[in-house]
Amino acid sequence: MSKPLILVSNDDGISSRGIRILVELMTEMGEVIVVAPDSPQSGMGHAITVGNTLRLDKTDIFGSVPAYKCSGTPADCVKLAKHHLLKNRKPDLVVSGINHGSNTSISVLYSGTMSAAIEGAIEGLPAVGFSLCDYSSEADFSHVDEFVKKIAAEVLNRGLPRGVALNVNIPPRRNEKVKGMKVCRQARAKWEEQFEERRDPTGRKYFWMAGNFVNFDKGEDNDEWAIANNYVSIVPCQYDLTAHHAISFLNNEWDV
Amino acid sequence: MSKPLILVSNDDGISSRGIRILVELMTEMGEVIVVAPDSPQSGMGHAITVGNTLRLDKTDIFGSVPAYKCSGTPADCVKLAKHHLLKNRKPDLVVSGINHGSNTSISVLYSGTMSAAIEGAIEGLPAVGFSLCDYSSEADFSHVDEFVKKIAAEVLNRGLPRGVALNVNIPPRRNEKVKGMKVCRQARAKWEEQFEERRDPTGRKYFWMAGNFVNFDKGEDNDEWAIANNYVSIVPCQYDLTAHHAISFLNNEWDV
Repeated sequence: MSKPLILVSNDDGISSRGIRILVELMTEMGEVIVVAPDSPQSGMGHAITVGNTLRLDKTDIFGSVPAYKCSGTPADCVKLAKHHLLKNRKPDLVVSGINHGSNTSISVLYSGTMSAAIEGAIEGLPAVGFSLCDYSSEADFSHVDEFVKKIAAEVLNRGLPRGVALNVNIPPRRNEKVKGMKVCRQARAKWEEQFEERRDPTGRKYFWMAGNFVNFDKGEDNDEWAIANNYVSIVPCQYDLTAHHAISFLNNEWDV
Repeated sequence: MSKPLILVSNDDGISSRGIRILVELMTEMGEVIVVAPDSPQSGMGHAITVGNTLRLDKTDIFGSVPAYKCSGTPADCVKLAKHHLLKNRKPDLVVSGINHGSNTSISVLYSGTMSAAIEGAIEGLPAVGFSLCDYSSEADFSHVDEFVKKIAAEVLNRGLPRGVALNVNIPPRRNEKVKGMKVCRQARAKWEEQFEERRDPTGRKYFWMAGNFVNFDKGEDNDEWAIANNYVSIVPCQYDLTAHHAISFLNNEWDV
């Protein structure tokens, strides 16, 4: 049996620590190709490059593993891999990450890591985004291997429902061992932004976005609860944004 | 009774024709404040500015209507409006657009227009993104007024379910009059990308993304059908991406 073909991307950029770990783990499981941004793309959400050019250059950063760095967004990387580099070869799995920082709850919308995975799902490919809930550049990744490999193996063996990509968040390394994995829903939470106003050297105003994460969700079936309680969270995500429950409200309450 | 407060943004940039029309229409309905990108942001999806500074400058481009141009994305604009400019004043309505081009079906994911509206919904504000399904810079907007005003009035009068923003697409001006409005779901479709390879003046390769829209959806209850049949489509959208139907699949079929 031939080895599965695994496409690896991320949003922290091709030279980040997280993608190196993911490439190493996936190389144990299949034939790997890497297409990732040439610079950090955090917060890019599902952006694509429209009305501008894209660069795509081969790199030997991962030794014998074929790898390409791209001037575009994570979603661009997956599109270029699928429609330009691989053409008639279809990846058996798309993995993105491992992101330096949490992508739980509402952060999934802003996440470049998850946009690569969701772009995979749009292309009909089983896809997973992995994030470690530790923003430090010195983050300890030593506990992630077993979960990343187990989840990748399950997706390769059992597949995913059509149109679904997994948002996997791994708790930060703590003294206590991770308790296990939980299938979750996206927690109801948001960022309360604060904008810090500063002056540049010419005296002109500029802002830094800062903010506090506010969790409104009292449930125990969501990703925030899982991470807080030292479980790996697995949220199946879809790209059909239709609020199906609101269709009848609009048809009944509105004069359309 | 005081006039409703209406926040206007877009993704084509503050100097585009579409936002000028939207500002004029909203000024008839309430007190308007405009916060929009200082340059086109098409395809930005739900990007936000992380790890970089933001500029926000007042402009008199709309005469006496208070307006600000922002160096960031559509989502940044809504965040800055809510948390910096308006602070304790809560908009009664957030409108985004009118986009030059369709945001039906899968395009909602890549749409900066809709990211401003969805950001509004995250902030608990009733929000609508408007798009005209005509990419031409000379597009004829003369038929949009009645629909934009009617939908804005319905949202102001009847509200929207929590966490829901409306994705409104208006058919291009045709010989036949628009037939009406339809509440729809997001059509199942995707872009099949083609990357055109070129050489720059130094001989180095670069790419332009091009693509064909492929509609797999045979239903008559989706936004693509509505536009093709000369109806305005209204898709209620949510930011909970959880594929709730997939949770039981994972819990039952997977060994987690």
